[in-house]
Amino acid sequence: MIRVYFVGSGGGSPSFRGLPAILVKREGWSVLFDCGEGTQWRLMKYGLGLTSLDAVFVTHMHGDHVLGLPGLIESMGLLGREKKLYVGGPRGLREFLTESFKWTRFNPPFPLEFVDSLEVGGMSISSFPSCHTIDSLGYVVKEKDRVNLNVERLRETGVKDWRVFRLLKEGKSVEVKGVKLDPETYLTTRRGVKVVYTGDTMPCEQVIRAAEEADLLIHDSTFLDEKEAHSFGHSLARDAATTASKSHVKALALFHISARYRDASPLVQDARRFFPHCFLAEDVSFYDVRA
Amino acid sequence: MIRVYFVGSGGGSPSFRGLPAILVKREGWSVLFDCGEGTQWRLMKYGLGLTSLDAVFVTHMHGDHVLGLPGLIESMGLLGREKKLYVGGPRGLREFLTESFKWTRFNPPFPLEFVDSLEVGGMSISSFPSCHTIDSLGYVVKEKDRVNLNVERLRETGVKDWRVFRLLKEGKSVEVKGVKLDPETYLTTRRGVKVVYTGDTMPCEQVIRAAEEADLLIHDSTFLDEKEAHSFGHSLARDAATTASKSHVKALALFHISARYRDASPLVQDARRFFPHCFLAEDVSFYDVRA
Repeated sequence: MIRVYFVGSGGGSPSFRGLPAILVKREGWSVLFDCGEGTQWRLMKYGLGLTSLDAVFVTHMHGDHVLGLPGLIESMGLLGREKKLYVGGPRGLREFLTESFKWTRFNPPFPLEFVDSLEVGGMSISSFPSCHTIDSLGYVVKEKDRVNLNVERLRETGVKDWRVFRLLKEGKSVEVKGVKLDPETYLTTRRGVKVVYTGDTMPCEQVIRAAEEADLLIHDSTFLDEKEAHSFGHSLARDAATTASKSHVKALALFHISARYRDASPLVQDARRFFPHCFLAEDVSFYDVRA
Repeated sequence: MIRVYFVGSGGGSPSFRGLPAILVKREGWSVLFDCGEGTQWRLMKYGLGLTSLDAVFVTHMHGDHVLGLPGLIESMGLLGREKKLYVGGPRGLREFLTESFKWTRFNPPFPLEFVDSLEVGGMSISSFPSCHTIDSLGYVVKEKDRVNLNVERLRETGVKDWRVFRLLKEGKSVEVKGVKLDPETYLTTRRGVKVVYTGDTMPCEQVIRAAEEADLLIHDSTFLDEKEAHSFGHSLARDAATTASKSHVKALALFHISARYRDASPLVQDARRFFPHCFLAEDVSFYDVRA
């Protein structure tokens, strides 16, 4: 199970919604996606863990998605963090952080490791190109499949030796009293969940492909009805719903809501005409993603 | 009269107090001093005017004082600002903003003019070196003195001609029916108020001199009792009070309170032993400075 926190669900300039930030947690590990200004406050205020983050991934270099990151990292330093922080994002992220630290006289007292993808806390994180006005990435978080012994079936064979169990779980065949036990017969796979975050994007094929059969798709849904949406590199709520439908996802979170919608319920009403299982991401709420 | 808003009165990393930001308003003009992360939210949330700022001055380049500035300026741009923004601060500020804008693909749609001092809205703003661990500035905001005609005294002379009034107000002598009227005799000066903000500083002579006879001194008061305060480039509350006393100021605001003081009242109690007319700057409060 992966828990997804919508730390900030708006976009552009500050409003009653926070600037984009999504925190993904699994078994004590936590990864942040995007870090608009004010993200560190929200992580602290809502007890989501400021210093304990394992990794931060940024979708693109627009200020509303990244201007909170220098302050977040500087606060981690002030608060005594020592463990490595993994950082991923588009070209320019490393230079932006380097320049910010240089001019604000900050030298991180812990290692920053820049990565393109990551395996951490039983999750793999990888990126795909999304379709915005500048270079931008979406991210796929995939929980590892879990392989378990089918204990019922093994009991039928009369085998009780834990060493046999272990070998089977490692995928090896075992011979017990002249009988060959194959792992395929005694192992069951519990599929890990898949969460996809598009960042800012207009609807496009790459996103549809990356979101294929996701358990949760978090999609740009900046506007209800704005003729220029696509030329701004954004999506309407119904675009997000159409993508969700084409990708056969289980659930859709409408995200990056423009500040012009004080009441954003019309966005979700419109989206549901195309994909019923969708909801508005709200600050600061969470959603548990189960297989 | 100058109104001073304490937008954020803390320092370092985020806490229940906002990061440093002080808004000074006079007759519709407004100038911001320091801009910690989250300042733009507070300006918006409390209706203090995000796009209407005339100038921003930064005391020094530590992140808690400046990391909110790129986002503030980017939001001004998104919200359609066109008028010039004056910006002042220590070396590195211009480069920091340039790099932040470059990497976040932002091109300000309004002019930024970098200045060392400024006259705006009947106030003059100038800087002085304060005493921190890196290059740092304090600021003096001085309301212009107001020169008025002493109407009572003029009436006694029988003069009613407004052209005579105007010449006297311009500081010129006028001869009326053979009698010479000198401006010194018929003008009164109402002293403008003086507000001094130290930024981060340990107690030092430069600050004492700059604060001389200020109507309000806003002084670093990071700690109550921390042996390392001065080597950290900060002041104790009682240092601020001692400076206030030496500078013969009218009132002292204790500012830049460390997050370690959930209850900061001991700081003000201790400071009052040395300078009675002092108070804790609280977010988001204001103080009217009158002569």
